[in-house]
Amino acid sequence: MGKLLIVGTVAFDAIETPFGKTDKILGGAATFIGLAASQFDIQSGIVSIVGDDFPEEYIELLKNRNIDVSGIEIVKNGKTFFWSGKYHNDLNSRDTLITDLNVLANFKPVVPEQFKDADVVMLGNLHPNVQLSVLEQMKGRPKLIVLDTMNFWMDNTLPELMEVISKIDVIAINDEEARQLTNEYSLVKAAQKIHKMGPKYVVIKKGEHGALLFHDDNVFFAPALPLEEIFDPTGAGDTFAGGFAGYLAETENISFNNLRNAVIHGSNLASFCVEKFGTERMINLSQMKIGRRLEQFKQLTQFDIELK
Amino acid sequence: MGKLLIVGTVAFDAIETPFGKTDKILGGAATFIGLAASQFDIQSGIVSIVGDDFPEEYIELLKNRNIDVSGIEIVKNGKTFFWSGKYHNDLNSRDTLITDLNVLANFKPVVPEQFKDADVVMLGNLHPNVQLSVLEQMKGRPKLIVLDTMNFWMDNTLPELMEVISKIDVIAINDEEARQLTNEYSLVKAAQKIHKMGPKYVVIKKGEHGALLFHDDNVFFAPALPLEEIFDPTGAGDTFAGGFAGYLAETENISFNNLRNAVIHGSNLASFCVEKFGTERMINLSQMKIGRRLEQFKQLTQFDIELK
Repeated sequence: MGKLLIVGTVAFDAIETPFGKTDKILGGAATFIGLAASQFDIQSGIVSIVGDDFPEEYIELLKNRNIDVSGIEIVKNGKTFFWSGKYHNDLNSRDTLITDLNVLANFKPVVPEQFKDADVVMLGNLHPNVQLSVLEQMKGRPKLIVLDTMNFWMDNTLPELMEVISKIDVIAINDEEARQLTNEYSLVKAAQKIHKMGPKYVVIKKGEHGALLFHDDNVFFAPALPLEEIFDPTGAGDTFAGGFAGYLAETENISFNNLRNAVIHGSNLASFCVEKFGTERMINLSQMKIGRRLEQFKQLTQFDIELK
Repeated sequence: MGKLLIVGTVAFDAIETPFGKTDKILGGAATFIGLAASQFDIQSGIVSIVGDDFPEEYIELLKNRNIDVSGIEIVKNGKTFFWSGKYHNDLNSRDTLITDLNVLANFKPVVPEQFKDADVVMLGNLHPNVQLSVLEQMKGRPKLIVLDTMNFWMDNTLPELMEVISKIDVIAINDEEARQLTNEYSLVKAAQKIHKMGPKYVVIKKGEHGALLFHDDNVFFAPALPLEEIFDPTGAGDTFAGGFAGYLAETENISFNNLRNAVIHGSNLASFCVEKFGTERMINLSQMKIGRRLEQFKQLTQFDIELK
């Protein structure tokens, strides 16, 4: 059984979409990553930080999915990271209304002893120095290190981010971030430049337009499942990353062919995430539903042209 | 050998992209459709109209690809339809600079006797009344009628367009047009509404984001091949339609499974079209290159997750 270490935020979100709005609900990159990864037969643990305002039931929810929470520091008299955002009508863009870092401002991650030999490390979107600190605590080189990041760190901490990028195997960012990082409009050219920064594998997420996986001159594409309704995109990218990393930790095979499968598993799980607010859909998700939708992914992309 | 009738413009284009600009060059929907379809083992013919300013060499170029040109009316002292456009930096949008209808303003299409029993009719983007007139001239019902159209006809001739749509089997339009036609943002919902207007099959072209094929509750997706450079998108949609219709005319099989293959063939040929200005790439294209790129499409989308 492979071991997956997840680093990222565990947080409160308040979300407004054209379909409704929520109060403070469970959110955070590590939460979405952990819930997605928990669909696979792995040992997983989260390194994060919350305040003592964070409900015990949310911690229990993660524990019940066999996620090790001993790396989640609970700060006494601290307040949990809070993000609030409002999506535009097409759901492709959003305005951030509130970002209260709270306890995240002084986060010094501590990797639990039993996860210092994790096979796969999933670095969720956080300050590059936090990501670096986690890598430095590992015993030996993990088989695979996957990085998620965002334009905020490119704008504000580029040298530190470039150091992280030089140390990882897979980067998973969206199309606009890939363009910003490389100053290339063509995603093919952007991926080539990112390869040179370090990562052997480059995943470019295009939201409703699917995801591309680049490895040297090879490229693989997974569509997003065409859905009647997208209810709330929050956490879709993290869910994708969690499915991707979880599948690789379970199979312990980091060949390009298996990474293709990982991209499909990530896309599959993300297609559920967007159907309800926050983590709601991911919390109530059966293996049977996941399997059926994988079949839909196969139907969506397979064709039988015989090549001469 | 299947017979394909193509109706559309044969024209002059003048194009400006971030990479350069052209004088008046060969263009027009029927030209691109015909060149793409000529890659298949079919009998094809074009119904269109040009002025006597249209170079004989362009007509010869079509003839040399076994395209029947007896349905292209040459108007004495008439001027050929001329379109000029300028693409924005991202190549996803463009401004039309000039549209000189010229001989197209009074086009009364005449279907040559030997194409009145065509198996497949490809109605390229034109006034809906011209498209209707062609359908009325057919002897019996063609096996498959494919329609391309655009927002201009939705804005200006909606009742006539709706009549055409009620009589055809496959509509191929882009995402914005599908949204305009149905007032639905979700493409899944848009396709459902369009099914009710008549077409059994709905193809929604998303440019660099690929194409979706809907049939009842089934959906198939073909990505666009990720290219380092897109040089000139002019004619890509028509090339897609020509590959789609040409393959179906050759195979004479209009099952959903075979339409999937047709979408891949269309996407494959369109990926060449955008590599050079206008028709240049389509004119110099070997079967070997086409086959190799089909292999790339397969590599791009295949995965081997075993479903339980």
